[in-house]
This record gives sequence, structure tokens and C-alpha cells, in this order.
Amino acid sequence: MAEKPTILVTNDDGFHAPGIHALVAAMKEIGQVIVLAPDKPQSGMGHAITINDPIRLQQVDVFGDVEAYACSGTPVDCVKLAKDKILHHKPDLCVSGINHGSNSSINIIYSGTMSAAMEAAIEGIPAIGFSLLDYAHDADFRPSAHYASQIARQVLENGLPDNTLLNVNIPALPVQEIRGMRICRQAVAKWEEEYDERNDPRGHRYFWLTGKFVNYDQGDDTDEWALDNGYVSVVPVQFDLTAHHAISFFQKNWDLHQTHPESHSGRSVKDLG
Amino acid sequence: MAEKPTILVTNDDGFHAPGIHALVAAMKEIGQVIVLAPDKPQSGMGHAITINDPIRLQQVDVFGDVEAYACSGTPVDCVKLAKDKILHHKPDLCVSGINHGSNSSINIIYSGTMSAAMEAAIEGIPAIGFSLLDYAHDADFRPSAHYASQIARQVLENGLPDNTLLNVNIPALPVQEIRGMRICRQAVAKWEEEYDERNDPRGHRYFWLTGKFVNYDQGDDTDEWALDNGYVSVVPVQFDLTAHHAISFFQKNWDLHQTHPESHSGRSVKDLG
Repeated sequence: MAEKPTILVTNDDGFHAPGIHALVAAMKEIGQVIVLAPDKPQSGMGHAITINDPIRLQQVDVFGDVEAYACSGTPVDCVKLAKDKILHHKPDLCVSGINHGSNSSINIIYSGTMSAAMEAAIEGIPAIGFSLLDYAHDADFRPSAHYASQIARQVLENGLPDNTLLNVNIPALPVQEIRGMRICRQAVAKWEEEYDERNDPRGHRYFWLTGKFVNYDQGDDTDEWALDNGYVSVVPVQFDLTAHHAISFFQKNWDLHQTHPESHSGRSVKDLG
Repeated sequence: MAEKPTILVTNDDGFHAPGIHALVAAMKEIGQVIVLAPDKPQSGMGHAITINDPIRLQQVDVFGDVEAYACSGTPVDCVKLAKDKILHHKPDLCVSGINHGSNSSINIIYSGTMSAAMEAAIEGIPAIGFSLLDYAHDADFRPSAHYASQIARQVLENGLPDNTLLNVNIPALPVQEIRGMRICRQAVAKWEEEYDERNDPRGHRYFWLTGKFVNYDQGDDTDEWALDNGYVSVVPVQFDLTAHHAISFFQKNWDLHQTHPESHSGRSVKDLG
């Protein structure tokens, strides 16, 4: 790449979050950076898009000499708008994060950080989401920024397989204790919810989502294993959700030719009689 | 199954939408139905969850003798709450829809309907999302309800492969013109966005999301093909997003053992020198 690559930076914690500032600083060493991030925290937004409301965009001056916009929409809206209204072309790379908290294993499904990266990948833009396993207010994003820089360079140099993005999680360790990177699969894990039930001052019931993350996976090739053992986990992710391995089950076990008794085609109840 | 199966019904169009009423009527013929659905439309919410706000739940009396609740949260919140606070156990089946509009191919990623079904599947509940390719206000949900009933019976009878749910889309055709069902893969397609740019009365710019759905896939094994040819499309869906086929690419092409120069382990810059 002769010219500096264009790098779109977004996140789901909002443009004030320290994680995106660490990521912008790391990406400035590699390319021409542009920021389009939510104007407020959007954690847990998954792949939500704003259909029924207008979206606002405001240029902000909080990243030094980097062109930056705050967006009233979701992380996915940010990527769509950046491409259509700000860049007017595909950037060479889209990076999302650095998220304040884990997006490993099943968390990818709920994550605005990862959904922004996935939206970029759907658009054919090489994309990476970064998350740090640290919820502390004063979390140290420097080790994450170091690995974000390394991984972004490898993606710009070697490309990504078609229709693939990366989910990168970084353990909450001092940089000298991180043992390197592992290419992993998504661990089989889930959240066990317990809603905290309360009554408001008018006596009406409401609920807060709480829960416990449970890893059911004993494999040493998962992101959970890597993170537990001091590695940065790198999961290649796809957005073809087809369970290809299950197609034959249905073709074998299901009666697919049943139609409505009044149907003009296929096998009707009459034909069976 | 000796006793009547318990069927949880939800959607993303809200409990007033005609699609969920058609689905409840169809499921009442098969099992013991309970409804927990959003109290307002939640289209495009993807897999969003409510983390930073309390959630309200209110019993509503709009489905005849069927126990039903309206929820202030997202479609995914509805499934989580139903299991934890209303049913206190896993239902035998969760059905979501019938959505007013397509959730075929890439639309699954943005769809609240499908995310509710996916959340149930993550919980180990057999789950199906239903969508009708008709945006008309007076869309006829009867053909969809007929196929929803058939498919729900097949799932209760034959089960689903582990960690698999179903994305069912129904063409907007009279029931006698529907040619049966096809087991499909998700077509390679995407939305090409064009934001509609306007100014508000105070002269401030805002955007509306608009766009065109483009199918890039010529295969006759896709959901788009099935729907275009008068079939109900049934896509088995998974929530392991790992691009397993891409793992070897990274293991071959990437230098994974690079650590920070100050690292205690792995291959450091010093070792290379």
C-alpha cells in the first residue's frame, strides 16, 4: 500500500471512552484515521440499527488532529453512516473498541463493538473488534493498544479471508505477562441470568438484568482458554449464520412437500389419500 | 410428549401486531401458550439487551385465554425474562413472529424477531423465527400461520440438532400458490444504504436510514431463491460465529509469537536478534 491506509475507528462505549482514545493513538501510527462513534454508551446494543428515528451527526474535536464525529445512533449506524456520508468510499480497515470489558465467546452476539466490526465486514471492509477484559474505571489500555497495532498491521499486510472479521480480546495483564496471541474458536458458554426484582417508590415492579457467565467448554482451542492462560485471543468470525452441518438432518427427517390442502402444486393431502 | 407442550411466543413488532396474534392462534392448537412480547415495536433491534435501564413487565389481556405479558425491553430481554421470571423453566418451544416483513439472508443479523429465537436457542430451547414477506398494513398472515403450525409440529416431533434454530420466511402469496418448503442456506446479500439527508426547522442536519436490498447469490439452494420461486424458506441457523474454515489461514500467515519487547515469555524482539 503506497499511500497511508484509511482507518475508520468506532466503538460502543461512546467517543469519550478511554478505550477509543487508546485505539486512535495506536492507529495514527499506521494510517489516516477517521473516527465516527456513538455520542453515548451503547453497550449491549448488538446489531441494532436505527430505523424509526432520525440520526444526528456532529463533528467533535476531542482526538487532536484526527477528524471525528459523534453519532446519535448505534455502533452499526456509525459504520453505515461513515461509509455513506463521510468517507464516500470503503476505508482500508475498520477497527472497533477498545471495549471496556470482554467480548469473548457468546458475548460477541450482544456486543455493539463486534456488531460495528461485523457491519464493516458485511460491507467488504477488513474489520477487527478489540476488547479488554477489565471493567475497572482506570483500566490500562496500553497492552491492548500494543496488540491492536500489531494485529492491524498484520491485517493490512496479509488481508483477511473473504467474509471474515476478527474478534480480539486482551487479558487484563501487564504487557510483559501477556504470552502472545492465539487463533481460537468461540468457546461454548452462556450467561445465566438472574433478574434482580425491585419495586419503585409507587410500588410498581421492575427488573435489572444481572447474571453469571458460565463457560461449558473444556477445549484448549477456545478464546476462553487463551484468555485464562495469558494469551490475546483472536477469533475469526463469519456472518453466514447458516448451520450448514444441519441441512441434511432436515432433508432426511422432515416432510418438505406438504403444502396446504388447497395448494396448486406439491403433494397435497389428496395425493396422499 | 404426553402433556401439552409449553410454547413461548414473542416477536419484535410488539404485542399489538397482527403477526403475533396469528402465531398465538396457530400455537394454541398445538400446546400451552404463553406470550411475552415487547410493549412497542422493536424492529431492527438485533441482539440488543437492556443493561443500563430497568425493565418493566405488565400482564395484558389481549390474547383471549392466553397468559400474556408486555415488556418494556428488547425481544432478547423478553426471552430472558420469560424463562427467569414467568415460566421458571425452559418451555418446550419458543416461536417468534410472525414478523411483518422479510428476515431472509443477511436480514437475520438485524432482526429482533430472529434474535429472540436465537436467545432461546442459546438457552437450549428449540426455537423458530417466522417472517412474512409482506409489508402491507393488511397483510394476510393465514398462509404463514399454516406453515408455522406445520413447522412447529415437526420441531416438537423430531427435535432440532444441538445449537440450531430455524429462520423461516414465507412468501407473500395466497396459500394455494405456495409450493411447499425448502431447507436453504442464507443467501449472500446485503443492504446498500443511502441515507436521506434533511435539515430540521432549526437548520440542523439529520439522516434517515434508507436502502436497497441486493442479492449477489446465484445459487438455487438459498433462501432468496426459494422465496423467489414460491417456497417457504427454512434456514437452519447457528450462533457459533467462528469462521472455522479461516483458522488455518491465520495459523499459516501470521506471526503469533510476537510479544511485547518487555514480555517474560514467548518470542521477544531480543530472541529474534
